[in-house]
Amino acid sequence: MTADETRIPVAVLGATGTVGQRFVALLDNHPWFEVRELLASPRSAGRAYYDAADWIVPAPRPAGLAGLTVRPVGAEVDSDLCFSALDASVAREAEHQLARQGKLVCSNAGSWRMEPQVPLIVPEINPEHIELLESQTDWQGGIMCNPNCSTIGLTLALKPLQDRYGLARVSVVTLQAISGAGMPTTRTLGMLANVVPFIPGEEEKLEREAFKILGTFAGDGVIPASFELAAQCNRVPVMDGHTLCVTVELEEEARRDELLHTWRNFGGMPQDLELPSAPDPAIEVHEDDASPQPALHRDAGGGMTVHVGRIRERSPREWMFTTLSHNTVRGAAGGSILLAELALATGRF
Amino acid sequence: MTADETRIPVAVLGATGTVGQRFVALLDNHPWFEVRELLASPRSAGRAYYDAADWIVPAPRPAGLAGLTVRPVGAEVDSDLCFSALDASVAREAEHQLARQGKLVCSNAGSWRMEPQVPLIVPEINPEHIELLESQTDWQGGIMCNPNCSTIGLTLALKPLQDRYGLARVSVVTLQAISGAGMPTTRTLGMLANVVPFIPGEEEKLEREAFKILGTFAGDGVIPASFELAAQCNRVPVMDGHTLCVTVELEEEARRDELLHTWRNFGGMPQDLELPSAPDPAIEVHEDDASPQPALHRDAGGGMTVHVGRIRERSPREWMFTTLSHNTVRGAAGGSILLAELALATGRF
Amino acid sequence: MTADETRIPVAVLGATGTVGQRFVALLDNHPWFEVRELLASPRSAGRAYYDAADWIVPAPRPAGLAGLTVRPVGAEVDSDLCFSALDASVAREAEHQLARQGKLVCSNAGSWRMEPQVPLIVPEINPEHIELLESQTDWQGGIMCNPNCSTIGLTLALKPLQDRYGLARVSVVTLQAISGAGMPTTRTLGMLANVVPFIPGEEEKLEREAFKILGTFAGDGVIPASFELAAQCNRVPVMDGHTLCVTVELEEEARRDELLHTWRNFGGMPQDLELPSAPDPAIEVHEDDASPQPALHRDAGGGMTVHVGRIRERSPREWMFTTLSHNTVRGAAGGSILLAELALATGRF
Amino acid sequence: MTADETRIPVAVLGATGTVGQRFVALLDNHPWFEVRELLASPRSAGRAYYDAADWIVPAPRPAGLAGLTVRPVGAEVDSDLCFSALDASVAREAEHQLARQGKLVCSNAGSWRMEPQVPLIVPEINPEHIELLESQTDWQGGIMCNPNCSTIGLTLALKPLQDRYGLARVSVVTLQAISGAGMPTTRTLGMLANVVPFIPGEEEKLEREAFKILGTFAGDGVIPASFELAAQCNRVPVMDGHTLCVTVELEEEARRDELLHTWRNFGGMPQDLELPSAPDPAIEVHEDDASPQPALHRDAGGGMTVHVGRIRERSPREWMFTTLSHNTVRGAAGGSILLAELALATGRF
Repeated sequence: MTADETRIPVAVLGATGTVGQRFVALLDNHPWFEVRELLASPRSAGRAYYDAADWIVPAPRPAGLAGLTVRPVGAEVDSDLCFSALDASVAREAEHQLARQGKLVCSNAGSWRMEPQVPLIVPEINPEHIELLESQTDWQGGIMCNPNCSTIGLTLALKPLQDRYGLARVSVVTLQAISGAGMPTTRTLGMLANVVPFIPGEEEKLEREAFKILGTFAGDGVIPASFELAAQCNRVPVMDGHTLCVTVELEEEARRDELLHTWRNFGGMPQDLELPSAPDPAIEVHEDDASPQPALHRDAGGGMTVHVGRIRERSPREWMFTTLSHNTVRGAAGGSILLAELALATGRF
Repeated sequence: MTADETRIPVAVLGATGTVGQRFVALLDNHPWFEVRELLASPRSAGRAYYDAADWIVPAPRPAGLAGLTVRPVGAEVDSDLCFSALDASVAREAEHQLARQGKLVCSNAGSWRMEPQVPLIVPEINPEHIELLESQTDWQGGIMCNPNCSTIGLTLALKPLQDRYGLARVSVVTLQAISGAGMPTTRTLGMLANVVPFIPGEEEKLEREAFKILGTFAGDGVIPASFELAAQCNRVPVMDGHTLCVTVELEEEARRDELLHTWRNFGGMPQDLELPSAPDPAIEVHEDDASPQPALHRDAGGGMTVHVGRIRERSPREWMFTTLSHNTVRGAAGGSILLAELALATGRF
Repeated sequence: MTADETRIPVAVLGATGTVGQRFVALLDNHPWFEVRELLASPRSAGRAYYDAADWIVPAPRPAGLAGLTVRPVGAEVDSDLCFSALDASVAREAEHQLARQGKLVCSNAGSWRMEPQVPLIVPEINPEHIELLESQTDWQGGIMCNPNCSTIGLTLALKPLQDRYGLARVSVVTLQAISGAGMPTTRTLGMLANVVPFIPGEEEKLEREAFKILGTFAGDGVIPASFELAAQCNRVPVMDGHTLCVTVELEEEARRDELLHTWRNFGGMPQDLELPSAPDPAIEVHEDDASPQPALHRDAGGGMTVHVGRIRERSPREWMFTTLSHNTVRGAAGGSILLAELALATGRF
Repeated sequence: MTADETRIPVAVLGATGTVGQRFVALLDNHPWFEVRELLASPRSAGRAYYDAADWIVPAPRPAGLAGLTVRPVGAEVDSDLCFSALDASVAREAEHQLARQGKLVCSNAGSWRMEPQVPLIVPEINPEHIELLESQTDWQGGIMCNPNCSTIGLTLALKPLQDRYGLARVSVVTLQAISGAGMPTTRTLGMLANVVPFIPGEEEKLEREAFKILGTFAGDGVIPASFELAAQCNRVPVMDGHTLCVTVELEEEARRDELLHTWRNFGGMPQDLELPSAPDPAIEVHEDDASPQPALHRDAGGGMTVHVGRIRERSPREWMFTTLSHNTVRGAAGGSILLAELALATGRF
């Protein structure tokens, strides 16, 4: 990354973790944004970035950041736009402080997602929720959130169905990659060649966030969507890419060809505005039996494409399918960057 | 294994594959049976067993078999009891031939499972189906089958619920280990850190076999159970142990304590007769959030215990849970041996 | 891949396996070559390519080949240039037949590598060995080979040291990825979370091929290099990318800065001629402790770059280092394509 | 574990990590010792043990400890014998404090290993070093250490050679399992299907600890062994079991049969005294090509057996072989327990 005066300087908080590294990798050579500040926990503060971060993203380390020193979360930030990959334990206070200081925070953390005045956005689905920023009158700046990594793939696959057929009832079983685990623990060591049928808080997050995202913006708030939704979340030994097995009961009957067409033609403001990180198409539909697979498909569209496959009819109103999305790109850093692009393109800063 | 004149000599067909090796390992020091013959494909025939078989079972290779030479499937068999781990492509004809020659074949292959006159048995569930052997009048011997590896865990978890509450509707998403894949293919190489959302024929097998096992024996045949059942089957990078995420709609309402009690007290003829391979209890119920896990629990009860955990109520009639069973022990070789034990204990040979 | 009359039509033999798929993926949009024929075992023959091949390369399947039907090895071939990823069991005869028929065969198989009249080439190291084609007077066409997947990384790392300091003695321990295993076997299933300290024939191949490649072309044959070389080869659960831990005793003393400079400036005809598949630089030297890693670095330079890191001095004449290369790209299909490019650029066809 | 007044009460420090869990699992039903106290970091303190520890040992959780509450390291300890699996960052001070208070500390941490007055013991190799406890006159109690997880396998394989032939020069390349990684970090997440060619400090530890263990006790100190030793250490995606590829140059010539005999007959005080955790034989020699493998052999002898295989001669004085040992049993908790057994059996407490 070369210095480029016309790009908007940004700060990345929580820069040394798996999602923070993804922010850094995705923002390298970004046409609109330039990473100028890296913040992380006190343990990393004061160290050169690549000494503090054990790089694990399968992409070269951006050369331009080799000279940056990590500063502690809580230190003064110059950039007006901040991407947060902070751990939930510190995110709420740190992001609040930045918002009060006039920064626009695009947060990947869970702390503010369900606050009524905070927009929780998947840009293809509910860009109009960004209006909620107007209700953040206590802060000079603002906070926008992208949802949890498993929610994004689910809601992107459901939205076209919701619009066309209505949703009555959804069951989802997740097979989630380990890169989304946040701070590694002893349990992480036990993930090799294993399945752990539990991710703390994940099922609840997936359920409540989906209702907010698929809900209706009503001027001063969001009326959550109302359909039945139940989730069983599992961790599997995959590095990146969440696979979700979904059963959906529609309110109206669907035909297979029509359903495929609905997914294939789904798009929204990111595609219309040709935002730099917008995948086109937003959804790739697979008709061969053995797709999608994390190892083969997660990187399509720079990791921003959502995949749908193994579409099977139980009845005209009940369908099963598998959806896959890259959890640290579309489901985290990339989703957050796309949101910032939407905000910039629609004049939010 | 030392020669022991009082044990019944048995042959293992398909002895070099993952299930064949499990047969050999489980029959080492078995109190009733002794492996005397090993048969496999022509490629392996004529070689010493441990030269022909790349041993991959995490248990010592039975020393007593080091001297046995593998013979080709189709060769004359002396033993009256045969365990078959043959690949589906050759199982049908080879097993048929043995049955006509007067052998009792305990088959782990899929070829004969759905034939009306062939019993498909999980000994705790439907031991009375063994009566179907009487209708195999064309053969001097007989064929008995254990179901597909994923069906066994599912049906063992469902049977107590069926008996107590009735089953209206079942959805299952499987996370299946690679040792069940049979003959490895190029796709096997791609399983590392990956999920493949498709196993050829598995969803169909799981659905139709479950109905037969949970069906009613009616003197001259089995009336299949009737409830709704839908499956989505995935391969995950786990060596042994199939994890199944189940949602079940009961015909009557259940209370949590009662449900747990029902599973914990489930048992059948194998436990009553104290068969050598019968686990006690048959089902282990886990109440901590992170269980069951393949790496931690698959080997309980010598790999014969079925695990149930993450039991959650959606409504008194709708429940979600996770079940785990060892696919090459309980779900294959061990299940087949338990069936042979049942046959012997009930005077079938 | 669009039809392009100016490109040279090529055939890929053994097109359904892991290396065959790599050939197909790497030749998609190749500026000089175009895949027109796909051949494989009789089992795959007659099927559409993507039905016959379980695609496992983490790159999109070239759309242009969807319509191609696989033909059996031994069938008539039209293309003058043939890439062979055949299994050793059939390669010798099949490649021989093509050479007699006037085809130029770039072979990745081991069958012909050590024949005196067959050049065994890593284009950066010993391009002059291509002259051996002249001695293949019995055939209208010819056979050229690239070495075994583990040999390529080793010899590319050693060549600059050989030229500058001379080699006295080399020890190498390999940690090899599973994609190089060729036909998957039962043992492949046992590779999950495991190490297998043995790869049949690998240590012998690595040793004898290295001497031929690093040997001297003497007009009518190759005088093998003479230094001590010992290898211990292991399979590890990595999808792609062979890691080699090397200890080398030089004939002359080296200084660290000089050594690094020697590797960094290494290049040869592929770089001079700017061949399409030539990486630049050929060798990437890593100075941070935790590099190179297969997951992070194997894809650099399109998978053609060889990595050297963890360079440590035991004495001025004895050095330890780690080298990494992509086994199915640089170590197989990519190496073969680079060799064909060299042949074309130097007027061999 | 039931209360048993005749067993010696012990405390486990660092009880929630992978090695701490192994201590707990191995001490369940130990004939001499009984776990009565569990200590860990302040984060875990005050919680029930199985709430604080994400159990990842593939063995049932000892039922008797379900009621124990974790106390913070630094709290008063009642037991006279303490097993320490503490992280290096806190081990030195915490163990020192216990020793001054009169406790005998069997430490698995690296903090005190190289102190001249602290015995560093592999009970089969250098039991006489336990005399060093006499020189710990400043403390009422004492500290004994077992070596680093990779050192144990290496030194056990080398000791019989040292005694019989003398050691001139040893090279070792390690393929180490992830359970030995201590506190998991971001890099741990990146270990899936990857190799990391670096473990901080490991090569230095392996080299210096081996010299101390294989050194000579000289009344008031240990004279380190003197031979050339160089190590290259790698982390591989294996859960448990370190594989080491060794090349050794002996001082005297060896014959293959003699060498095998030397390893097979190796034993020492643990075997002579029939200590509860002593494996018999101490070393298992494998003559088939594909052994030893972590997945198949690590658990032999309860995880205490060391395996040697792939023994190949380069010359009568230079040999290559592969050795495998269970890193969290023989290489950590089990090694420490065996040391405590030795101390008790020889009247040290």
